[in-house]
Amino acid sequence: MVKSMDFTPSARAADLTNRVREFVDTEIEPVEPEFVADIAARRARGEDPWTPHPAIETLKAKARAQGLWNLFLPAGHEGPYAAKYGTDGAAGLSNLDYAPVAEQMGRSFIAPLIFNSNAPDTGNMEVILKYGSQAQKDRWLDPLLDGRIRSAFLMTEPGVASSDATNMAATARIEGDEVVLNGRKWWSSGAGHPDCKVGIYMALTDESADRHHQHSMVLVPMDAPGVKVERLLTTLGQYDEPLGHGEVSLTDVRLPVESIIGGPGMAFAIAQGRLGPGRVHHCMRLIGLSEKALELACERATSRVAFGKPLVNLGGNRERLAKARIAINQARLHVLHAAWKLDTFGTAGALSEVSEIKAAVPQMACDVIDLAIQLHGGGGTGPDFPLAAAYAGARSLRLADGPDEVHLVVVARHLLKPYAAGSSAPNA
Amino acid sequence: MVKSMDFTPSARAADLTNRVREFVDTEIEPVEPEFVADIAARRARGEDPWTPHPAIETLKAKARAQGLWNLFLPAGHEGPYAAKYGTDGAAGLSNLDYAPVAEQMGRSFIAPLIFNSNAPDTGNMEVILKYGSQAQKDRWLDPLLDGRIRSAFLMTEPGVASSDATNMAATARIEGDEVVLNGRKWWSSGAGHPDCKVGIYMALTDESADRHHQHSMVLVPMDAPGVKVERLLTTLGQYDEPLGHGEVSLTDVRLPVESIIGGPGMAFAIAQGRLGPGRVHHCMRLIGLSEKALELACERATSRVAFGKPLVNLGGNRERLAKARIAINQARLHVLHAAWKLDTFGTAGALSEVSEIKAAVPQMACDVIDLAIQLHGGGGTGPDFPLAAAYAGARSLRLADGPDEVHLVVVARHLLKPYAAGSSAPNA
Amino acid sequence: MVKSMDFTPSARAADLTNRVREFVDTEIEPVEPEFVADIAARRARGEDPWTPHPAIETLKAKARAQGLWNLFLPAGHEGPYAAKYGTDGAAGLSNLDYAPVAEQMGRSFIAPLIFNSNAPDTGNMEVILKYGSQAQKDRWLDPLLDGRIRSAFLMTEPGVASSDATNMAATARIEGDEVVLNGRKWWSSGAGHPDCKVGIYMALTDESADRHHQHSMVLVPMDAPGVKVERLLTTLGQYDEPLGHGEVSLTDVRLPVESIIGGPGMAFAIAQGRLGPGRVHHCMRLIGLSEKALELACERATSRVAFGKPLVNLGGNRERLAKARIAINQARLHVLHAAWKLDTFGTAGALSEVSEIKAAVPQMACDVIDLAIQLHGGGGTGPDFPLAAAYAGARSLRLADGPDEVHLVVVARHLLKPYAAGSSAPNA
Amino acid sequence: MVKSMDFTPSARAADLTNRVREFVDTEIEPVEPEFVADIAARRARGEDPWTPHPAIETLKAKARAQGLWNLFLPAGHEGPYAAKYGTDGAAGLSNLDYAPVAEQMGRSFIAPLIFNSNAPDTGNMEVILKYGSQAQKDRWLDPLLDGRIRSAFLMTEPGVASSDATNMAATARIEGDEVVLNGRKWWSSGAGHPDCKVGIYMALTDESADRHHQHSMVLVPMDAPGVKVERLLTTLGQYDEPLGHGEVSLTDVRLPVESIIGGPGMAFAIAQGRLGPGRVHHCMRLIGLSEKALELACERATSRVAFGKPLVNLGGNRERLAKARIAINQARLHVLHAAWKLDTFGTAGALSEVSEIKAAVPQMACDVIDLAIQLHGGGGTGPDFPLAAAYAGARSLRLADGPDEVHLVVVARHLLKPYAAGSSAPNA
Repeated sequence: MVKSMDFTPSARAADLTNRVREFVDTEIEPVEPEFVADIAARRARGEDPWTPHPAIETLKAKARAQGLWNLFLPAGHEGPYAAKYGTDGAAGLSNLDYAPVAEQMGRSFIAPLIFNSNAPDTGNMEVILKYGSQAQKDRWLDPLLDGRIRSAFLMTEPGVASSDATNMAATARIEGDEVVLNGRKWWSSGAGHPDCKVGIYMALTDESADRHHQHSMVLVPMDAPGVKVERLLTTLGQYDEPLGHGEVSLTDVRLPVESIIGGPGMAFAIAQGRLGPGRVHHCMRLIGLSEKALELACERATSRVAFGKPLVNLGGNRERLAKARIAINQARLHVLHAAWKLDTFGTAGALSEVSEIKAAVPQMACDVIDLAIQLHGGGGTGPDFPLAAAYAGARSLRLADGPDEVHLVVVARHLLKPYAAGSSAPNA
Repeated sequence: MVKSMDFTPSARAADLTNRVREFVDTEIEPVEPEFVADIAARRARGEDPWTPHPAIETLKAKARAQGLWNLFLPAGHEGPYAAKYGTDGAAGLSNLDYAPVAEQMGRSFIAPLIFNSNAPDTGNMEVILKYGSQAQKDRWLDPLLDGRIRSAFLMTEPGVASSDATNMAATARIEGDEVVLNGRKWWSSGAGHPDCKVGIYMALTDESADRHHQHSMVLVPMDAPGVKVERLLTTLGQYDEPLGHGEVSLTDVRLPVESIIGGPGMAFAIAQGRLGPGRVHHCMRLIGLSEKALELACERATSRVAFGKPLVNLGGNRERLAKARIAINQARLHVLHAAWKLDTFGTAGALSEVSEIKAAVPQMACDVIDLAIQLHGGGGTGPDFPLAAAYAGARSLRLADGPDEVHLVVVARHLLKPYAAGSSAPNA
Repeated sequence: MVKSMDFTPSARAADLTNRVREFVDTEIEPVEPEFVADIAARRARGEDPWTPHPAIETLKAKARAQGLWNLFLPAGHEGPYAAKYGTDGAAGLSNLDYAPVAEQMGRSFIAPLIFNSNAPDTGNMEVILKYGSQAQKDRWLDPLLDGRIRSAFLMTEPGVASSDATNMAATARIEGDEVVLNGRKWWSSGAGHPDCKVGIYMALTDESADRHHQHSMVLVPMDAPGVKVERLLTTLGQYDEPLGHGEVSLTDVRLPVESIIGGPGMAFAIAQGRLGPGRVHHCMRLIGLSEKALELACERATSRVAFGKPLVNLGGNRERLAKARIAINQARLHVLHAAWKLDTFGTAGALSEVSEIKAAVPQMACDVIDLAIQLHGGGGTGPDFPLAAAYAGARSLRLADGPDEVHLVVVARHLLKPYAAGSSAPNA
Repeated sequence: MVKSMDFTPSARAADLTNRVREFVDTEIEPVEPEFVADIAARRARGEDPWTPHPAIETLKAKARAQGLWNLFLPAGHEGPYAAKYGTDGAAGLSNLDYAPVAEQMGRSFIAPLIFNSNAPDTGNMEVILKYGSQAQKDRWLDPLLDGRIRSAFLMTEPGVASSDATNMAATARIEGDEVVLNGRKWWSSGAGHPDCKVGIYMALTDESADRHHQHSMVLVPMDAPGVKVERLLTTLGQYDEPLGHGEVSLTDVRLPVESIIGGPGMAFAIAQGRLGPGRVHHCMRLIGLSEKALELACERATSRVAFGKPLVNLGGNRERLAKARIAINQARLHVLHAAWKLDTFGTAGALSEVSEIKAAVPQMACDVIDLAIQLHGGGGTGPDFPLAAAYAGARSLRLADGPDEVHLVVVARHLLKPYAAGSSAPNA
């Protein structure tokens, strides 16, 4: 039986896509340069650059009023929350329907935050929604969905190769009715925001359990004693304010054992569920980011003149733009296909597809953005265009949520399953 | 209004796809090595290698008996011919429905011929079907659809850059009620087959007409006085028997003016209509060819052992296979999208999409096949695997029906239309 | 007559190479992280990050005491200055001899400054040395060679495609015995340093002159009325303290006409002479930077363990490292060859070679550094390794001193000279 | 102590280079098309295509008379043979001196044969010269150096991954004073030539010996009972007449034990010595082949007109030509460096360098030739230009004498030696 592979967005998704695009175009992009300049100016004046620009809350309210809020809420899991905090009380969107919506959000670095649909909060909210207790939901999910607080995800560690999660050295030991946390995490995205009140911390609980049940996920109040944001890290020079990427130390942090999500040893199962859609969301947004970069490239290439011709008529520029067009189109279809696969066959049925796009789309985005930078000359590398930040974001996604190489291993494993030695001797 | 973008094949297409695949797997691939060896052996013995292996006619009859015949016939143009020579009397398939069928045919170099769906005959049949007079249809289309004769396409010339069709130097001059042909063509595919009875010849009729109405297409009996197949050409060393690629001279060939298709000066309009679907068909088949190459690569990489490990566990082989998987998947979706665009918006509405896949898919196929060759070692370059021929076929499609570079110009033109200088100063 | 192509460094160059390497290894690299952290800390505390770390002057003095000072001074042009401010009074090094020395300096972002051999000061000093009047030398060259002041180069403009220097919009008009400057420049490297006292400003003097004599170069005191550093720019997020890249406005800046270097209209001739060796120096340093990145990559790949193996034994990592080894080795030989060509045939005789390396080496460096980043995981993109800054530096050199594409045009022009249409219709 | 790295050819080498180039240009290239056409015509007529065109012997005599004969003879090993069969009685050339000479030979597929300097004969002659007994020299080396007979090299096997020589399944068992050969070899280059009288056969003698002393090399008269050339193989469609690539079976071939070169178990040691310079020779010739392809590309690109412009002024063609120029120049310097390393530090001291060029140069050549093909349109893939054959030759060298991947392993091993895990866990 052939499953229908229909990539047409629903009428609701098409409408949301248009409205998000309109909002991004008219409300967000015009003020983005001001946000960027404001942060640079505050830094130059020695002021705190982390407090979000006041316009952000205004824009959030406006987006929410238009029903463009929490659109990431996954179909089938939205429970009462869609009605309470979502668009219009309707059910969550399928991955396929969310794809074009998220693409539009991806055009602007600040847009996802304004629609309350930014990483890592979306993934964190999904985790609490799917695996959290009612108490956990009441304490953390409601304010997150309401946009009152932000959250961080504490998984990667400085001391080990975190691409292999079994390397994890941080601990979450059970002592009586407490869980005691010790460890150092970095690339804890979201940790720079002043409203970041909670982190999801993943760590080793019990090395005597079987390989995939040794780790736990714990909801950690960021103001708990022993939690310290040591510093905020740059990614290719970008702080990515107001969310930021933190290095966080946890020293004898004692929490009630009820802070563990889904119970001890469940971290791997939860991570699998969290990362699947999260990776697809990243790719959806990267399509929008690439499209934006290509538009900037086309504008520049048709308006700047050198040697008596617009850049587009010099050398291989026209071919490179055409190849970027092709690359984005292929990648978009690929992402839609992965989203459809997720919707139709579930996470377990879409492992290869999710890894395929995660291994391919960030590199594609890097290439397109790099072309746009080159066409902008020195300006392309500087603060007046969103390209340097876009490159940093796309480049970091070749590492975040699993480096390219790890995803290629997953793809290869599925590809080789039917063959003799395929499943027996994974190279990684 | 959003047009539904549903890539699901119809039940009929899904069934045909399965049956073609089954036929290729069980009837054609097992005998393919014998065909190849037979041609080599005949050459070595100094015998004619061009007469098709007798099994081909047997296979054609078998395929036809199963309704796997003339499946390329385009929906809406099949007229009475689908009933007469087609599958089961049903209407022609949409491009989207034909895509997975053609993909299966593309797995074997000989399969398209056996299903009477090979280039250049399909394109030639489409031209006669859409633009030919009833007399032309009776004389040439019936036997072609019946598989009794083969045809050639005479467009490319040795003396000029044929990527620019306006360069064409061959002539088809009207003299009274005759058209007189003079010129030299090469890469006239199909000209090697002993049953090749007719060629479609494109040439200059009237340089005083406007730029796109100077050329005509003429149906030329290959046995007309003055027509000579000077030689058969190799493409990267392959003769591609039994069809072959001819160099053909035409010297004072006199034909009734009724031999012109659609009337004098119509060649460009016809070529546009011919080449659109033809290019998509090439890409569909290349997906199948790439998939076949990847399967061979996986088989080899999991079964050959070096330095104590199957090749798949050495160096970057596993990653390369994964990247090939990704590349084919993206390309297939891209081809489906172009087919859907053709079906939904017509040739004029799919110009960019057709050029996008034509510029991208042959290169992708070359890369995948090259990987397969490398994994096969010396054997991969030799006659015992279909890889060298596959590479030659894919590589030649970076040139045939428009080189990559010309298609990139088309893609860029569409991309840049909204921008200032985009439409004004094409670089090519 | 074959010119000897001997790439062996002279005994003096070999000795200097070893000593510079030793100095970089033992004196500079150990303190580099502190410099980086100090700048970040000052920014975080709202303090001025532009004042150089005090250790820099100490290191400069130490390097100078060891004779590792002004080693860039070109053979044949060093005049009395080599004795006064140079190493040991010896003559300047040939380009071929300077190559391995500069390579060592390129390993550290701060090293060139410490050896008084950093861009743009080296190029500026060369210009004054070769084309300046004695008064200009006395006022500016002496303190520059002495390391007391720094300088900027003001050429690129925000409003035009500066890859085509004839686009330049800034002006330097002669009014009586004054030259009056108006314009806006950016990517004026060096402008962030508190000791930056002079800029070399290139602008339009007389559009009635022939195409290559319309522009002048003017020595502008940075404290002249009307000169304003509007802001300092980031390059892929990096400020590159303490030198920085400025956006500088010049408004009715009036200077004595003697401030023009070599007289009005000489800018193009001077620029040609300035940029040739400057480009080669950039490439020399990039070889060192790439080598450093490869070393970091190897260290990481052999020490980090994932999935039970050091990274170097996972997937294609080993192959990628080998390819990086190959790429650097080819590039180094290429740079040596260009240096030899410059020494042997002069700037005019090495136009293609200089453009060849300028078009190839920065991209190679980007690729090697990107590999190193990927092997370092998230850390590779952050502030704890010199890789993000290295990438920014290498990437910006695909644009600075002429974008890749412009250099490829030069290479093509030389390549095609012997052919019919080669010289007639340049595409750019 | 710095070893002088002087790439200047000696006066003798410079003279030989010029004379070989002149000979290739004026004597060989003009008749090459006739050779190709003659072979095709003989095949078409059912005649033997393997007998060399009679002009070949004439050209050989002419080259020899000019002293352009056996120039490959290695310095220090030429013994009395240089005087007897070489140029002018002078000593053999260093690798560095032979590089530009071999480059010129590489421009034409037939040239190496005419200068008696073609693979596999050169490698075979070197083996006999260095390791053969006087009786072996008298019987085989003299007629080979005299150009009276040709030879084959029988190493690769169809049944195993021959990239790992320890896989070898063919046997050479000692029985009393005989050695008995059984096995099947393919890609036995040279086996198609009617004068091929001897093969060097490598096979397993004693699996109880240590890993690198189990195999022997045996001189096998091609007319010995039990030796059969089963067929001649195509490489990407090319038979490479008159040398060819054979599949050879050996069935109970009994030879005197004196037929073993250097004694039983010495094959690996000999192979190492044989393959080092052989690989460098291949790379030298590929530089010449790439240069020839680039010249053809430039000629075509400047003379063919499409869309009103020479191809060189369309799209990215000019950039691609420039990049090819850069790639060849880098590769040539790389080859010279490896040759110099071989001369200066011996085979053991140049292992990485030889593998570096073997892993890089064939791919570079493929890329340049592929560009030339693309610029020639359909003609580029056909028999009228030497490009399809050039591509096949370059592509096969990504496999012959060790696939790219194996050479990258060697390069990585040397690169990683100084690092912790580098030497311990080779991935291949």
